[in-house]
Amino acid sequence: MAQAPENYALLCDYMDALGVDAKAAARAMAAAPAAAKNAALRKAANAIRVRSRQILAVNAEELAAASTKGVQPAFIDRMALDASRIESIAKALEEIAALDDPVGKVIASWSRPNGLEIARVRTPIGVIAVIYESRPNVTVDAAAIAIKAGNVVILRGGSECIRTSKALFDCFAEAMAAAGLPQGAAQFVETTDRAAVGALLSGLGGRIDLVIPRGGKSLVARVQSEARAPVLSHLDGICHVYVDRDADLRKAVEVTVNSKMRRTGVCGAAETLLIDKSVAELFWPAAVAALREKGCELRGDAAVRNLDPSVAKASEEDWHTEYLAPILSVAIVDGVDGAIAHIAKYSSGHTESIITENAATADAFIACVDSAIILHNASTQFADGGEFGLGAEIGIATGRLHARGPVGVEELTTYKNVVRGTGQVRL
Amino acid sequence: MAQAPENYALLCDYMDALGVDAKAAARAMAAAPAAAKNAALRKAANAIRVRSRQILAVNAEELAAASTKGVQPAFIDRMALDASRIESIAKALEEIAALDDPVGKVIASWSRPNGLEIARVRTPIGVIAVIYESRPNVTVDAAAIAIKAGNVVILRGGSECIRTSKALFDCFAEAMAAAGLPQGAAQFVETTDRAAVGALLSGLGGRIDLVIPRGGKSLVARVQSEARAPVLSHLDGICHVYVDRDADLRKAVEVTVNSKMRRTGVCGAAETLLIDKSVAELFWPAAVAALREKGCELRGDAAVRNLDPSVAKASEEDWHTEYLAPILSVAIVDGVDGAIAHIAKYSSGHTESIITENAATADAFIACVDSAIILHNASTQFADGGEFGLGAEIGIATGRLHARGPVGVEELTTYKNVVRGTGQVRL
Repeated sequence: MAQAPENYALLCDYMDALGVDAKAAARAMAAAPAAAKNAALRKAANAIRVRSRQILAVNAEELAAASTKGVQPAFIDRMALDASRIESIAKALEEIAALDDPVGKVIASWSRPNGLEIARVRTPIGVIAVIYESRPNVTVDAAAIAIKAGNVVILRGGSECIRTSKALFDCFAEAMAAAGLPQGAAQFVETTDRAAVGALLSGLGGRIDLVIPRGGKSLVARVQSEARAPVLSHLDGICHVYVDRDADLRKAVEVTVNSKMRRTGVCGAAETLLIDKSVAELFWPAAVAALREKGCELRGDAAVRNLDPSVAKASEEDWHTEYLAPILSVAIVDGVDGAIAHIAKYSSGHTESIITENAATADAFIACVDSAIILHNASTQFADGGEFGLGAEIGIATGRLHARGPVGVEELTTYKNVVRGTGQVRL
Repeated sequence: MAQAPENYALLCDYMDALGVDAKAAARAMAAAPAAAKNAALRKAANAIRVRSRQILAVNAEELAAASTKGVQPAFIDRMALDASRIESIAKALEEIAALDDPVGKVIASWSRPNGLEIARVRTPIGVIAVIYESRPNVTVDAAAIAIKAGNVVILRGGSECIRTSKALFDCFAEAMAAAGLPQGAAQFVETTDRAAVGALLSGLGGRIDLVIPRGGKSLVARVQSEARAPVLSHLDGICHVYVDRDADLRKAVEVTVNSKMRRTGVCGAAETLLIDKSVAELFWPAAVAALREKGCELRGDAAVRNLDPSVAKASEEDWHTEYLAPILSVAIVDGVDGAIAHIAKYSSGHTESIITENAATADAFIACVDSAIILHNASTQFADGGEFGLGAEIGIATGRLHARGPVGVEELTTYKNVVRGTGQVRL
């Protein structure tokens, strides 16, 4: 691996070399046997366990430096490793190793009247750049998912814990080499120079096939606006729960509270509750009691405040806001059509849930709401690759092309069209 | 429909209005029943037949104007309609109407231990902008495929036959209205101002979900470099035929000649022939005779010229060139590995074919060549949605995300994740 550079011209050369190495490794990775990829992941898990003391020591130094700089506690928490987080990282590697290998899987096949046999066969996407903030575990998670799907990965992590990330990456890279996988198939950007991100977003001369940002809104927004390669990402998770007139209200309270309060900082957390006007009075007392008991602040529209003057007023801004905090905006709507209209106007296209015992109403909601994930009688917090059974996810995508919702190993593949004949020519 | 504008500020307003109308129509289109979409396509076919005389009259005027301007004959040929081309356009509409409706189709479904039932259901992509050159038939073909898949389409055609395109579009738009489909679901850019293309590529304020260019290399290159929305396209079709040592040489001659000479101007036409050195001497006489009989010019590498000094010398440039003409570059390679290496270096990732009776060699070629379409013992000219049995295609994609190879109705959809529960909350 090249040394981190000291000036802009060197940085460009350095990043270019990364891209060249990555592209060169992509062909070999596409043909890498499942056993080699899985062995690399398992060896990486072992190496991380064996070297946990050194990794934690580096991490402690970086945590101390961040504290001194006055970095926010939530940020520090995401940076921090301990024995149990190290074990989670190692375990995730083993779980990804145990997943089915998607490469070579036939997605569809059919034959033509002239005898041609056509199959669509999964192949890796190619070179994936993952740009993430100071969460060292993402280094290994992202690399593992990308490699499992036969891709090459270029990792660029946040500067505050770049040494911790590098220590984890070294375990990974050595395991790749030990398993006979090509050098260059996993690359780590060693410089904290922000221009390196610009270089990745420029596509390194067309050598990057996909960019995945992992982090806060400003990072994702920058990647979405600057990247010259396709991006899988989501900017906001403004998720809605709609409680219909035909809801089982006990279920509705449970699902609402869980959707908002299980964890408020995740993208699948609900931000807005929509209540059918026909059940608003009946649903309100139990819902508000349960939400407030968990410490949730409520902000309502005029109809809500009419029902309960103790609720603060929601501004137009509130309906557009991903709080990522124990705050819930609440609107009363006119049935499922009102809910669909509100969601069409304000949703970020991430995840929405309807609570109803009426199958026809649920079907209408599912058909007319155009979000990546739509749930019926279930918490929005299931918006997660693990909960979907994908084994692992690299993120949630709210774009419309290629993959929507959780992006796991399979979603990091594409396909090629294989046509087998016996000498057919076209008339 | 708004009137075409006269200055830049008006143009921006006009394009913006198009985008707003399109986005507004997208929700209704996503829920449009198959019967309404198919009725619209059939009504459009009828309307085009009924109005064929007027359409041909407009076309004749535009052809005359283009001739006066000294436009190239091949260009004029693509612009020209006659009774049989009008009938082909109408027939294509009926064929697309007869295809299965992809919207609502379940791509995958599974259940989770907690009882959640997860399904991936096909939905339209949304608003698709199609930017094409002066081929009036593309107006109707592109609109029909997009609408069949439940999308909204914004069409921007070449200026030389914009009136012909508009006459065809009017039939289509009226049929949409008669079938009860939303106004705004099919839009036609009425101005020939080139800034309109810029506005479409800017994404009209995030209202365009996908851009598809149809036309020559300069159009596609501009779209690929400027579009802010995802693009499905191909820039070049530098397709290879590899004749292996275990080829049936008679088959090899037939497939080679067909791949190059059936039509030389299509993107699936072969541009380079690779011959295994072990069969070069044996294969050459029959191959060269058959190719030259069809009027094909050959350009060879040193080994080819050693074998046959009558062949012109291929420059480095030749291996990178999509001739779209009766010219074939020829190289002698060292077996399938040599062919794979040559293709990795020079291919545009479109279509490649191997001719061999050895299944293991074919499998190696298929596994290691990373192009959208890979054929075994068949002509590269099968690189076409119709030949694939997709019923219709809007183009061939050589990008790596979403769809590779022929893009038909199904490839113009995406999916949403539908999760059905009974009140599940996440632990």
